[in-house]
Amino acid sequence: MKNWLIEQLMRMNLSDVLVRPQGFTREGYTSEETEAIEAFKAIAEELGLEVSEDAAGNAIARWNVAGGHGAVATGSHLDTVPNGGAFDGGAGVVCGLGAIKMLKEADFEPQRPIEVICFRAEESSRFGVSTIGSKAMSGSLDPSLGTLEDQYGVTLAQAVEGQGFVWQEMVNAKRPKEQLECFVELHIEQGMHIVNHGKDYGVVKGVACPIRLSVTFNGKAGHTGTTPMDRRQDALAAAAPFISFVQETALQLNDAYGKSLVATVSTLTASPNSMNVIPQTVTAGIDIRSVDDRLKMKMADAIQNEAKRIEETTGVAIGIEVLVNNPSVLLDDTIAQQLVEAGDHEAYMAHRMDSGAGHDVMNMAQIWPSGLLFIPCKDGLSHHPDEFADAEDLKMGVELLARFLMEATANGRNG
Amino acid sequence: MKNWLIEQLMRMNLSDVLVRPQGFTREGYTSEETEAIEAFKAIAEELGLEVSEDAAGNAIARWNVAGGHGAVATGSHLDTVPNGGAFDGGAGVVCGLGAIKMLKEADFEPQRPIEVICFRAEESSRFGVSTIGSKAMSGSLDPSLGTLEDQYGVTLAQAVEGQGFVWQEMVNAKRPKEQLECFVELHIEQGMHIVNHGKDYGVVKGVACPIRLSVTFNGKAGHTGTTPMDRRQDALAAAAPFISFVQETALQLNDAYGKSLVATVSTLTASPNSMNVIPQTVTAGIDIRSVDDRLKMKMADAIQNEAKRIEETTGVAIGIEVLVNNPSVLLDDTIAQQLVEAGDHEAYMAHRMDSGAGHDVMNMAQIWPSGLLFIPCKDGLSHHPDEFADAEDLKMGVELLARFLMEATANGRNG
Repeated sequence: MKNWLIEQLMRMNLSDVLVRPQGFTREGYTSEETEAIEAFKAIAEELGLEVSEDAAGNAIARWNVAGGHGAVATGSHLDTVPNGGAFDGGAGVVCGLGAIKMLKEADFEPQRPIEVICFRAEESSRFGVSTIGSKAMSGSLDPSLGTLEDQYGVTLAQAVEGQGFVWQEMVNAKRPKEQLECFVELHIEQGMHIVNHGKDYGVVKGVACPIRLSVTFNGKAGHTGTTPMDRRQDALAAAAPFISFVQETALQLNDAYGKSLVATVSTLTASPNSMNVIPQTVTAGIDIRSVDDRLKMKMADAIQNEAKRIEETTGVAIGIEVLVNNPSVLLDDTIAQQLVEAGDHEAYMAHRMDSGAGHDVMNMAQIWPSGLLFIPCKDGLSHHPDEFADAEDLKMGVELLARFLMEATANGRNG
Repeated sequence: MKNWLIEQLMRMNLSDVLVRPQGFTREGYTSEETEAIEAFKAIAEELGLEVSEDAAGNAIARWNVAGGHGAVATGSHLDTVPNGGAFDGGAGVVCGLGAIKMLKEADFEPQRPIEVICFRAEESSRFGVSTIGSKAMSGSLDPSLGTLEDQYGVTLAQAVEGQGFVWQEMVNAKRPKEQLECFVELHIEQGMHIVNHGKDYGVVKGVACPIRLSVTFNGKAGHTGTTPMDRRQDALAAAAPFISFVQETALQLNDAYGKSLVATVSTLTASPNSMNVIPQTVTAGIDIRSVDDRLKMKMADAIQNEAKRIEETTGVAIGIEVLVNNPSVLLDDTIAQQLVEAGDHEAYMAHRMDSGAGHDVMNMAQIWPSGLLFIPCKDGLSHHPDEFADAEDLKMGVELLARFLMEATANGRNG
């Protein structure tokens, strides 16, 4: 099984290695993502699954069963951040396929359908919005997002159409509630909690959804050689204490509340970005996360106040736009219990925990009872070329998913 | 004359206005710059001048005189920073042409040739290196600069070749010393010293050449949602106090030494610049200027020390590359005296001053006795869409240049 998992993961990563210096760059709604999904479809067909694609380009591999019951689904995504790793998303997809292979080899006969879903465009790196495919499937896709642009000025709607889909029709990817019984995602942890607690895998209670802000500093351009220091409105000089403030305040809030809040100024663009021109405009993107929504708001409020202070001190006008502000998502307790029991059965120890990262399961959980399984990854690292998960842990993921799917499809009654 | 100047300046700016919201974007060795130079050549031909282009693409408009004497030259450039103004460079070029028109209309007969030179690629915004055309003409062009890249990965050598010239042959633009007698540039001040001192124009003593540093912060990427605040090496969080330090230290040095030093973090690029990835690498460009070279070095040393301190505190590795470190340039006293006398003759009052900005004259002064004339510009603003110089001041520039050229070419003896 381990060799099979590695081989299929390499196929879906379009590579004969799983770690390489430049990492993997396969952003949402690019031909690279489409190629990876084609590989997924090929593997699913080799396993004898029925393969289809919905209006959003999500691929669905289905082990069909006559009778019209709702399916038990698992899955994740195959897009990556720029220079990301082969496991973020890919681990969940390959383990889902592996679980089916294991159940088929054991001649298991499910009483309801099983699906492995490969969602489109989970990462927010390209358009600033995450989990686009699962938003479409769960019916929460906002049609106005189609005008969002990537760094090259390509809109989300254009990108979707470039891959053979039609933006206006993507709302049709919404599935009736009765089509699915429940959904479980497997993902690499992207942190060190499992290992630090001496456990084997994670079962997630809640997912911390981000507040995301876009902050624009509007200063005044001028010649760097002739504009006296005390007569400037330098947008970057105004942004600098702001960046420090975000970092320091997040550290302080962690100290004060003993809770895990993270806040990052993750993007920054300066204009005109010329060696001999004082920066006129700086745009910074801020990502704030905590499972405690009040703590998240506390951080966002502090940022608002600091922006006012800097504006008054420097004369640089600061505008703040809220890109995203979603409450944290609580996952289904019954499913979580079943995921813990699956581990008991296979002699793996579960760690109950929260997730600092968002995942497709956030959207699926709005409609269907849902769960999230974590397997460890090396040094907790992800979104980085060194991202890595051990084949042993992938195999564990397969065993956990197979056990869960077996229990959940052993009979065909509803509920 | 005023209408003629405005019209010709509009022709060279390829526009029927001289101020517009988006400014002018005409970077060095682009087809936009070439078009502007074609307009310059057309105007020069209408004035009956001999027009030629050297191996670097500098255009030379010559009022020839038999006898083989060295020419008295004036000129400036037609490239701009992105979203810059119509006057930085253009003012010097159009006033040079205007001075020739004035002398021709007065039936003046020069005893040595007069030239108006339009240099290529004065601004450093595209390749990080300034005054490329005048470097070539004065023989100080470093052939290794050909590999410098603009933000799109186009090398300087490729850009040069795109405009019909050959990088390896650009050294042939070097002119023998005897071809020119002297050089005077006219430029907008890009500051407020002339007006603040109640004078009409500026005659420059020294030009403050920059120290330019490229500072790279190498942190570690990671997921913004799952990497605890106290386990990060965030390159942007490390760059922020550094930017503040540059700003504050420049202000302090001005206070302490009563001299005009300016230091600007003018460019910043963050990578991967994704909303959900901790910044891994930040590259910042710093521009430091003062006519006092020791003060400039003091600032650069302070920056080195601060980089070490931040590196030790944050674990983010910081590398500093010196892109440029040229001593300030002192201009010719005799020429300066002649420029002051030209003002006396025309009833304009000169302000003796230094220049915080670099100009083509810096390179010409390495070989030929050289001078620099400033005319006021509105609010001291340049490298900005609102850059503006009054037609009255352009006309004054024409009168000053015409008077200087007349005196300098009234007889043909050497010296």
